[in-house]
Amino acid sequence: MTGYDDQNIFARILRGEVPSFKVYETDRTFAFLDIMPRSPGHTLVIPKAPARGILDIAEDDLAAVARSAKRIAIAAMKAFAADGIIIQQFSEPASGQVVFHLHMHVMPVKAGVALLPAQTVKAEMDVLADHARRMIAALGG
Amino acid sequence: MTGYDDQNIFARILRGEVPSFKVYETDRTFAFLDIMPRSPGHTLVIPKAPARGILDIAEDDLAAVARSAKRIAIAAMKAFAADGIIIQQFSEPASGQVVFHLHMHVMPVKAGVALLPAQTVKAEMDVLADHARRMIAALGG
Repeated sequence: MTGYDDQNIFARILRGEVPSFKVYETDRTFAFLDIMPRSPGHTLVIPKAPARGILDIAEDDLAAVARSAKRIAIAAMKAFAADGIIIQQFSEPASGQVVFHLHMHVMPVKAGVALLPAQTVKAEMDVLADHARRMIAALGG
Repeated sequence: MTGYDDQNIFARILRGEVPSFKVYETDRTFAFLDIMPRSPGHTLVIPKAPARGILDIAEDDLAAVARSAKRIAIAAMKAFAADGIIIQQFSEPASGQVVFHLHMHVMPVKAGVALLPAQTVKAEMDVLADHARRMIAALGG
């Protein structure tokens, strides 16, 4: 396993160098929409501290990511009238990881509707903005 | 969402009514091999407390599951000379969940080797026994 590269896109989002559709934040975690959503409301939860994946993240940070993922899951069920939630987390290239800052995918799903393929179609900015608004409302309500 | 049914197979494993290939345990979590592994070493981490999925699990239990999953991931990399780890967790039937006690899948993967399809082939008992021994050794070492 190679080390953490602080020029990865999620590190740049955390530093505010790149914009994101932020939906939630805690002292240890940050959550924002995946711009290539596999389902409406597909959200990524990341630790604020540097971590490449599950192998090197501090246990307390991983626990915090999990806690935030639960909050996001509950909000996404409400915001998107979803029927279920899929959580995925990939570590190292062999797993399919492409951005090397740990991220937990939280994907609301509807019965009978398959996830879109990963990393394929970028959503329209106005659609993402609407989805972010819905998530923020559900998280605050 | 319907309620928790304490006759599900993982609840029965926790009560010792059904055998399992246990590899790890903490005060809040229990980890054992999936008997239909998608990769060698495919392990399930579950909370000891009743929880159907991510929507109803107590946050502290989910955090404990995540901590144990990290331990399992590190051990699986070593025990199976893996190149990466895939974490998955499904909540509610629409997501693909089939046993309604929260379980986090920890799957070691090798570069270029696809996961087997989910829920298809039951592994041989002696193969699972060998894999459990390897995991237990890696967790203890």
